[in-house]
Amino acid sequence: MAHEKVLKLMKSAAEKSGEIIRSNFRQTNGYSEKASHKDIVTKTDIESQENIQRILTKGMLELGFTKDEIGFIEEESDSDDVKKYNFIVDPIDGTTNFSSGIPISCVLIGFSVGKKVVVGVLFEAFSETMYWAEVGEGAFVKSSLYGERKVISTQKPINEWVVAAHLNAHDVAETQFEIYQKIYPKIRGMRNIGCLALDLCFLADGVMDAVFCNGCYFWDLAAVSVILREAGAEIYDLEEKPAEFNWGNTKHRYGIVATRPENKALVFNFVE
Amino acid sequence: MAHEKVLKLMKSAAEKSGEIIRSNFRQTNGYSEKASHKDIVTKTDIESQENIQRILTKGMLELGFTKDEIGFIEEESDSDDVKKYNFIVDPIDGTTNFSSGIPISCVLIGFSVGKKVVVGVLFEAFSETMYWAEVGEGAFVKSSLYGERKVISTQKPINEWVVAAHLNAHDVAETQFEIYQKIYPKIRGMRNIGCLALDLCFLADGVMDAVFCNGCYFWDLAAVSVILREAGAEIYDLEEKPAEFNWGNTKHRYGIVATRPENKALVFNFVE
Repeated sequence: MAHEKVLKLMKSAAEKSGEIIRSNFRQTNGYSEKASHKDIVTKTDIESQENIQRILTKGMLELGFTKDEIGFIEEESDSDDVKKYNFIVDPIDGTTNFSSGIPISCVLIGFSVGKKVVVGVLFEAFSETMYWAEVGEGAFVKSSLYGERKVISTQKPINEWVVAAHLNAHDVAETQFEIYQKIYPKIRGMRNIGCLALDLCFLADGVMDAVFCNGCYFWDLAAVSVILREAGAEIYDLEEKPAEFNWGNTKHRYGIVATRPENKALVFNFVE
Repeated sequence: MAHEKVLKLMKSAAEKSGEIIRSNFRQTNGYSEKASHKDIVTKTDIESQENIQRILTKGMLELGFTKDEIGFIEEESDSDDVKKYNFIVDPIDGTTNFSSGIPISCVLIGFSVGKKVVVGVLFEAFSETMYWAEVGEGAFVKSSLYGERKVISTQKPINEWVVAAHLNAHDVAETQFEIYQKIYPKIRGMRNIGCLALDLCFLADGVMDAVFCNGCYFWDLAAVSVILREAGAEIYDLEEKPAEFNWGNTKHRYGIVATRPENKALVFNFVE
């Protein structure tokens, strides 16, 4: 565990942001105020992000890192500056869920040494479920619902699959619907829970079997890319190659398909 | 509150079944055993259903009802016998979620006087959220996440809508996909959380704005039909009429669209 202390910091920051999300959930009184939910989201997003940056900065300095070495690539800021060590942060994955009142929202923190993401943490705020992994050390989960254990993706026949079918970019929705219509008759269930990173952890954890998304961002993928690989699954780009991050443009939008390598050919059949 | 004591019994039975669901969640050790998850579901389904029948029967007798007056219409049994008073029970709504490891599953209990459902209860087992209503008395929610309050569906512009797009019958999937493709560009978000009754409660609660499903059953709808109406929304059949239950065939499959009456014409535009 080369980065054990950094991982501990990341978990602590994610848990604290989970508390922030829970305490702000459905806190507008009076349904006529719902039109202003976007402001509240922004406020909670920013609060969560500032919390993460504060805990990680303080903790890293205490561990002996210098301020110049530490960069933050965050959904809610514009910095593209890649440092020696970087945190890639989504303070709330599942913003529409949070603002609408659906209790499924995650905090994501990835840690990179240069341009290689080596530690990833996801915390689902409402079920208080933490997924984490460090390169080479395996992936793990700890949940208020079922305790702690190692995470391994599992191979199943396609008629037992549960597939995550995201829709988050109007300009590519038609293509995505075509894929979903083709695969639906073959599988057991299709879900859109509004939280891509949690779906990817469900794939890592043997709960889901394939995840489709077009229009996601670096901070949606960075942390969970480590968890997925350590659990035996992979994120592919639409050229069927393991997804690589565009560090030169941290606002780049990704089209991805995630599954176990054994299922890659089968899954891409539905994409063509 | 003509049926206050019956409602109390129903809540107590639903909470106890929620405990049964939680304690059986992800309890197979070793992922190679996943192929047998269907057996476990059946076991938990049956355990939940037997628990509900036991608590309600005992409680009703204590309240002075006679055994001959009380009927049960349940997902996991074949009785079609409509009595003077009936409980319409889904011991686990969200069976695929439960068996796959997605923590969203509900217990549903409706209570009818003759052929009119007058009380409804939904308990989501993992967030410990109870929705309930009695005809004429309003709808309510109590959640471990945000406390207790009255439930009222809310009117929003369509570009702020979150819509539940179920897929649970292969033979009608193509038609459903057509509807979802038409409405998707107009709305904020589309979800399939794998639990129809919870979506209907989300509609009642101002979280969602329209719910589409084709191929659902009496026990998916009975309890929440009361909650929805008390909250100002409605379940429509595909002839655009308020859905009526087929008491002569409790295994009848329903095609439904649920929304607020003000949105009915707008929503059915996407169905044609």
